[in-house]
Amino acid sequence: MNSILFDHGRTARIGLPEAVFCEGKSREALVELLSRFVKGSGQSVLFTRLALDLFAELPEMIRSGYDYHPLSRTAFGTALPMQPKGKVAVVSAGTADGSVAWEAARTLTYLGIRCDVYEDCGVAGLWRLTERLDEINSCDAVIVVAGLDAALLSVMGGLTAKPIFGVPTSVGYGIARQGQAALASMLSSCAPGVGIMNIDNGYGAACAAARVINAL
Amino acid sequence: MNSILFDHGRTARIGLPEAVFCEGKSREALVELLSRFVKGSGQSVLFTRLALDLFAELPEMIRSGYDYHPLSRTAFGTALPMQPKGKVAVVSAGTADGSVAWEAARTLTYLGIRCDVYEDCGVAGLWRLTERLDEINSCDAVIVVAGLDAALLSVMGGLTAKPIFGVPTSVGYGIARQGQAALASMLSSCAPGVGIMNIDNGYGAACAAARVINAL
Amino acid sequence: MNSILFDHGRTARIGLPEAVFCEGKSREALVELLSRFVKGSGQSVLFTRLALDLFAELPEMIRSGYDYHPLSRTAFGTALPMQPKGKVAVVSAGTADGSVAWEAARTLTYLGIRCDVYEDCGVAGLWRLTERLDEINSCDAVIVVAGLDAALLSVMGGLTAKPIFGVPTSVGYGIARQGQAALASMLSSCAPGVGIMNIDNGYGAACAAARVINAL
Amino acid sequence: MNSILFDHGRTARIGLPEAVFCEGKSREALVELLSRFVKGSGQSVLFTRLALDLFAELPEMIRSGYDYHPLSRTAFGTALPMQPKGKVAVVSAGTADGSVAWEAARTLTYLGIRCDVYEDCGVAGLWRLTERLDEINSCDAVIVVAGLDAALLSVMGGLTAKPIFGVPTSVGYGIARQGQAALASMLSSCAPGVGIMNIDNGYGAACAAARVINAL
Amino acid sequence: MNSILFDHGRTARIGLPEAVFCEGKSREALVELLSRFVKGSGQSVLFTRLALDLFAELPEMIRSGYDYHPLSRTAFGTALPMQPKGKVAVVSAGTADGSVAWEAARTLTYLGIRCDVYEDCGVAGLWRLTERLDEINSCDAVIVVAGLDAALLSVMGGLTAKPIFGVPTSVGYGIARQGQAALASMLSSCAPGVGIMNIDNGYGAACAAARVINAL
Amino acid sequence: MNSILFDHGRTARIGLPEAVFCEGKSREALVELLSRFVKGSGQSVLFTRLALDLFAELPEMIRSGYDYHPLSRTAFGTALPMQPKGKVAVVSAGTADGSVAWEAARTLTYLGIRCDVYEDCGVAGLWRLTERLDEINSCDAVIVVAGLDAALLSVMGGLTAKPIFGVPTSVGYGIARQGQAALASMLSSCAPGVGIMNIDNGYGAACAAARVINAL
Amino acid sequence: MNSILFDHGRTARIGLPEAVFCEGKSREALVELLSRFVKGSGQSVLFTRLALDLFAELPEMIRSGYDYHPLSRTAFGTALPMQPKGKVAVVSAGTADGSVAWEAARTLTYLGIRCDVYEDCGVAGLWRLTERLDEINSCDAVIVVAGLDAALLSVMGGLTAKPIFGVPTSVGYGIARQGQAALASMLSSCAPGVGIMNIDNGYGAACAAARVINAL
Amino acid sequence: MNSILFDHGRTARIGLPEAVFCEGKSREALVELLSRFVKGSGQSVLFTRLALDLFAELPEMIRSGYDYHPLSRTAFGTALPMQPKGKVAVVSAGTADGSVAWEAARTLTYLGIRCDVYEDCGVAGLWRLTERLDEINSCDAVIVVAGLDAALLSVMGGLTAKPIFGVPTSVGYGIARQGQAALASMLSSCAPGVGIMNIDNGYGAACAAARVINAL
Repeated sequence: MNSILFDHGRTARIGLPEAVFCEGKSREALVELLSRFVKGSGQSVLFTRLALDLFAELPEMIRSGYDYHPLSRTAFGTALPMQPKGKVAVVSAGTADGSVAWEAARTLTYLGIRCDVYEDCGVAGLWRLTERLDEINSCDAVIVVAGLDAALLSVMGGLTAKPIFGVPTSVGYGIARQGQAALASMLSSCAPGVGIMNIDNGYGAACAAARVINAL
Repeated sequence: MNSILFDHGRTARIGLPEAVFCEGKSREALVELLSRFVKGSGQSVLFTRLALDLFAELPEMIRSGYDYHPLSRTAFGTALPMQPKGKVAVVSAGTADGSVAWEAARTLTYLGIRCDVYEDCGVAGLWRLTERLDEINSCDAVIVVAGLDAALLSVMGGLTAKPIFGVPTSVGYGIARQGQAALASMLSSCAPGVGIMNIDNGYGAACAAARVINAL
Repeated sequence: MNSILFDHGRTARIGLPEAVFCEGKSREALVELLSRFVKGSGQSVLFTRLALDLFAELPEMIRSGYDYHPLSRTAFGTALPMQPKGKVAVVSAGTADGSVAWEAARTLTYLGIRCDVYEDCGVAGLWRLTERLDEINSCDAVIVVAGLDAALLSVMGGLTAKPIFGVPTSVGYGIARQGQAALASMLSSCAPGVGIMNIDNGYGAACAAARVINAL
Repeated sequence: MNSILFDHGRTARIGLPEAVFCEGKSREALVELLSRFVKGSGQSVLFTRLALDLFAELPEMIRSGYDYHPLSRTAFGTALPMQPKGKVAVVSAGTADGSVAWEAARTLTYLGIRCDVYEDCGVAGLWRLTERLDEINSCDAVIVVAGLDAALLSVMGGLTAKPIFGVPTSVGYGIARQGQAALASMLSSCAPGVGIMNIDNGYGAACAAARVINAL
Repeated sequence: MNSILFDHGRTARIGLPEAVFCEGKSREALVELLSRFVKGSGQSVLFTRLALDLFAELPEMIRSGYDYHPLSRTAFGTALPMQPKGKVAVVSAGTADGSVAWEAARTLTYLGIRCDVYEDCGVAGLWRLTERLDEINSCDAVIVVAGLDAALLSVMGGLTAKPIFGVPTSVGYGIARQGQAALASMLSSCAPGVGIMNIDNGYGAACAAARVINAL
Repeated sequence: MNSILFDHGRTARIGLPEAVFCEGKSREALVELLSRFVKGSGQSVLFTRLALDLFAELPEMIRSGYDYHPLSRTAFGTALPMQPKGKVAVVSAGTADGSVAWEAARTLTYLGIRCDVYEDCGVAGLWRLTERLDEINSCDAVIVVAGLDAALLSVMGGLTAKPIFGVPTSVGYGIARQGQAALASMLSSCAPGVGIMNIDNGYGAACAAARVINAL
Repeated sequence: MNSILFDHGRTARIGLPEAVFCEGKSREALVELLSRFVKGSGQSVLFTRLALDLFAELPEMIRSGYDYHPLSRTAFGTALPMQPKGKVAVVSAGTADGSVAWEAARTLTYLGIRCDVYEDCGVAGLWRLTERLDEINSCDAVIVVAGLDAALLSVMGGLTAKPIFGVPTSVGYGIARQGQAALASMLSSCAPGVGIMNIDNGYGAACAAARVINAL
Repeated sequence: MNSILFDHGRTARIGLPEAVFCEGKSREALVELLSRFVKGSGQSVLFTRLALDLFAELPEMIRSGYDYHPLSRTAFGTALPMQPKGKVAVVSAGTADGSVAWEAARTLTYLGIRCDVYEDCGVAGLWRLTERLDEINSCDAVIVVAGLDAALLSVMGGLTAKPIFGVPTSVGYGIARQGQAALASMLSSCAPGVGIMNIDNGYGAACAAARVINAL
């Protein structure tokens, strides 16, 4: 109906550019926005929650102007300039947490921050985490992505001194209630100093880690 | 007003005698019941949730007829005969879980079943659990008692092949909501084959373990 | 994107092999996994929540390598070796609880444990349960599957001395809230020593019963 | 501050007089009201939730003008005229449900309706209910009072053809959440045609039964 | 998989025959059941929540054997014999409550009990109720069906002396949460002696009213 | 520890002065604040939720400088100048809603706005409202205060064209959950154009009405 | 089945005509209603929540008789006569709140009340609100539409003296729970005198503002 | 019963020493712990949630060995060595948030990290925040403490590029539900990259900020 009033001063104020959350937006609105920020346009925006079937039906001209990643449902034309320092570890519990873990990883990539992803570290098989612990601790910030009872966060929080952020995922059924159990579990964690994000908010965790990397 | 209609056939039917949950009962009702089941009366009942200040004010004649344990708030006159076999491990996360862990331990003692209690095994300091793992695994059933995010259950569940029961505790504040977070967390655990109890129900976990020991 | 890091040591540690929960996994991921574990492959995994329409569309080569059971939505290539002893009773309240009851039964079958299923034992017609009580009590563990108010659990729990596990189901509407009422009801049961599972978690109840059978 | 505007026409319109719910009212307000409706005053009102310690401290002149019942916390000066026909059975699960069961019974007594109270009928010991079934079924309406999982309602509902009303009680802890589990359980009952009351609302169940008796 | 174990003695025990709740049942199971109870089969069962599109696709032979009512989604082959006395008023608040109000009315018709339906009596336009009050009060029991804030129940409850049952409906959005607000509202009603049903449970209200009519 | 930073420009910006919510503030902090704003001090602030026992223990010098109203727990030294026009009707359902209704009335008095209070208008006895309707409709805004199912709001909303605000109260028990049922009920009201306040927020409703009166 | 009993006297009583909420109504019912109120019919009704795909499939004859607005999903044949005075500001936080903001705006237009819409005023970029503040404050009432944490309401409430109404939207995911977080946030706002609507209830906010404009 | 098994290696592993949460611990246990860590003992621990009345009754010998701060309810014998760099801003919304804000500030002091506290920055009076913005932005991390609707977090998050952590407080009543509304609001914030703590967890926020300062 009317075009969006972007918050243009955001990067100057908070060091993070605006992003477009695609879920719930109409196809028309998205096409208009995607057209504006293709590679080579001189402007760049991160698109999150951009469903594969929606992206696949876009005109080739738009699609070819984007780096699209189906699992994480993220797209951008041009990534921001590479940050000279800092690296983030993204640690996730199970395969089903993949889309959220990769949303975090892709956001970091877009922001020009290096990151490594460590998947399938669920605590029911502890060796999968402890084997990779030194590598994780060589990073400057840690993002933990987990659903169900999210027990990984407390274990990880007791094994690292780095700034650490937790993202509960909507993985699970019944009492897990689309991630509400994981969220409550993470907020109640006995590991001290862990900042928690909304359910499935991989994008937010990456921004939080970016604030830390920017401060180094 | 009228005396309680006990379910006398219960032990014959399910192998577990009736117990008296004291919370919410009037002082008069409890005095009458406690008088009936003192040591030497030839009958025996387990009293749970019997507050110290209430017990301390009873006539000496009643108090001396009971084995009372303040932390767990349990009392009995005479324990049931010792079971010839079987042992249960009660593993708890933090000091604050003590009253529930000991309610379980004391119920087992009353039922004539041996048990060991392993406290302060919270996963934020994993070594406290792994150091004692072999000992725990030498028991025939495991009870895990934990509040907050109850992450201990998933870790323990991935390290033992024994029948295992989880008791969430009301330890915590805010989103922990008197144990609702711990309960949801335990029910969502990624460790397979774990039976969960109501919040703070150490008595129930002991009964569940007793059903297993009785079946050996 | 990247292949799953299986917890290979699980059977050695806890006596239960890993299983694959299919809901929420992509078709591609499932086809890859199903291809790997067909009958005759020398490896075996249990697949749960594998929808009929998804299974029906698989290549014949894969389908013929599996024992698939539509009501319970479970599949496996080869069952584990038959356990020499032990039998489990699966008791359910109504027809609508069938898929969960049979998920439990099929998991037991896969694990090599004998079981009998007793359906339509809802307490609004008590005779259906009491008529079959002796048979149920001849088993070594009991699984109770019920939705709505899950009253069957308390009645059954007062009639058996065996280890007993409750699975609330998502059957019902309105205040039943997809099984939350049944779950709360089971956890509040006045029958002592009953371990409860997450809503619809027939697989978990079977694993809990297997832990008991393995301990006999 | 200002005196209550009673709904004087209520008995004429709905066959039930107004009652005074004492909880939350100031001592002053209650003394004024109690003074007005003593035995012999020619007027009569039922007082519910009138705490014993509050009643015990009233002037002797008021206390002697009332029939007070401590367990149910009810009081009235003069009961209404005896109804020529009809009798109600009040069936409760455990001792802890007593105050609610007797609130129902006392309300019926005040309304001039005969009733019998059957306590300790919890389904974990089914024989306690079945032994008294014929007596219960000789009444014209049945009130079921139960907390925890409230399983008694479904069992009773499957054994009587009479109008039947369920009152969940706040008995229980943890997930029972002050009767919310019992309430959800009763509303989800598989027994058909059962009208449910708010938690602990014994007064309401008696009124519902009175509407039935009045209609006979 | 296996056929349903009907509770054949139900009518004898509680005066109400079994009914089949169709939602969630497979098409196969329904076809089998519907075939068995067509008009002329000598047996009769009430089917509730039987969706129009499902019914419309049945073989003509089955369809012609049923009296089907699309709005209420109910079907039966033969109604039970007409009761000699008693009549029920079904009063609803808005057009959107129609399917539930008519589920109640159709259930009564099937049970052989006369009933009148009074729609659009929402209290935001009080005259619609007061105009029809005398007619409603000439019935022997009243069923109130309302969603949103369900205010109609308190108003109606203050204007009739008859046994009265409330059915909250899932009409509404946002905080109405699929009828949870209406349910809580009805249970908290200031009108005394009202028995409440689960959300959308028109069938249950009809059964409750039938218990009253049977007792006259 | 440090003194409060008042928002001094508030009256200029929004036409309403700051008020002090006393609940949860320490006795020391309140004494300091109350000393500052006594009659004759040249400044004036409204104190809400100021408990009687706390006020009664203040030094006589402070107490005599305030107009204190126990039922509403409000106090002020000097009221603001009388507004030349506008009058508000405060309509409440039951006696137990009195403290909230009077908090609204007293706030209006402090703000210099005339108001009338109409108590005991609960819809279970409709005549109490309809009798006073013309008087209520002669006011310029209406505040409805009700707990339990808060049905009064829908009825009142259908009988007045004036700006109307609803305040749910924490009156009730069980499913009423300290006013959550009344709040949901009011927000779901079928009467159009009603603005709702937080539970027990009589102060807020008065401010909302004041915004309307100020705009006349 | 039977036609709707409209509340014809509503405009006379409360100054607002009836509207038709289309969601959940059958296509047949809507076609009948839409046919009745086309432009030129002499009667007029506002239709809300009328989905575009449903409207697009209507016969041309009906469609051409309506002013339909896709984003807000509203339609009317003829608007009511223009009010001589008064103007409302509709202020919204983000693009995703558009459908609700425009439902409010369109309802005002239908009621003959002027309004301006201010979109994208989210507080994470405060300048977007402060820049337009004078214009907003020149209106006679303010409607604030916001999802997520709804922080805009408190900021706006502290910057205007006008009657102000808040509409939480269902925008958001996870803990935002379809607007429940925004609703709780708005009701807890520290800005005094703000009346809140149900989630997504733009229609209701417009009616509340209309009551104010009508009172000027 | 048995002494606590401290996690001695914690500082080495995660850079943060263990702390003692006093709420819920018995007086005996606290006296024993407090005796052990007095100034001059060579060891040091932070005590949180240590109530003033409990502290005031301790033997003088213990009290004199502690730096106790009543508002924040924190105590320590000896603070850790001052960190050479880094400073944290603690920003709170209202006076009632003081105890949580100061728990954060005192924890930072104990950890040897400099901090400034900015109180009364609630967004209903925006100037109180914007006036102090430059000072806040000169710090290296920001902690935001707010109850009610917690709108301050979104505003602050849009005005700083620093790592930022939010602590919802239990300030508020009704729908605020002891901080659940503030928690949901913060987690739903539209400001990107904000890590959230459990309700009232000022200690946790300080630890999170310390992880950042340690990483500089």
